[in-house]
Amino acid sequence: MKALILFAHGARDPRWAAPFERLRDTIRARQSDLRVELAFLEFMTPALPEIAVAMATDGVTEITLVPVFLGQGGHVLRDLPLLLEEIHQQAPQLKISLQPAVGESESVVAAMADYCLAKTENA
Amino acid sequence: MKALILFAHGARDPRWAAPFERLRDTIRARQSDLRVELAFLEFMTPALPEIAVAMATDGVTEITLVPVFLGQGGHVLRDLPLLLEEIHQQAPQLKISLQPAVGESESVVAAMADYCLAKTENA
Repeated sequence: MKALILFAHGARDPRWAAPFERLRDTIRARQSDLRVELAFLEFMTPALPEIAVAMATDGVTEITLVPVFLGQGGHVLRDLPLLLEEIHQQAPQLKISLQPAVGESESVVAAMADYCLAKTENA
Repeated sequence: MKALILFAHGARDPRWAAPFERLRDTIRARQSDLRVELAFLEFMTPALPEIAVAMATDGVTEITLVPVFLGQGGHVLRDLPLLLEEIHQQAPQLKISLQPAVGESESVVAAMADYCLAKTENA
């Protein structure tokens, strides 16, 4: 069984999570047979190892892991491999396919450019 | 004269800036008569007040300011107003139109959902 985890930074302000929840809900609406969950690096729950191991317990065998970060800095390049190692120790049979962060997607950059230009014209 | 500032977090790792530079370059390519610059909260330069005041000195009268953040947490809701006040003290004539963060855009969320689903199918 496959699943998708959207990995985000997290923040103290609960309003911060709204776009990530909208992203999760959009994906769920488009593909209702796919289990899609958020996971956070800090300040918010669940943590990535917690939800990944819970999925494995539920019978998930393959997880697609997408960092919902625009820039790939220390959190993606340094913290994430440590979390993956932690998951591997607890659920060694689980296959995790780590994808490039959303900011690497040309279509995401194009959508942001559209948004910025629309806001500039209307300002 | 109008200009656009893309306000991002910044990070220690120089690779972090790549998607923001691609966003800036995409917007410049689409609207070559618009001055478009990046600004950062921390770790990278220029800082927001620095570039905004420099633009005012260059004759810019109106700036559209787009936070290139997915979530609107403390950085956007708390730090940004302080930076805007700092700019206002140095360049009181400058009009700044602060826009919702890119993560508030439905089309950006839709592009991220497309990306995640494509990665899930190919994984």
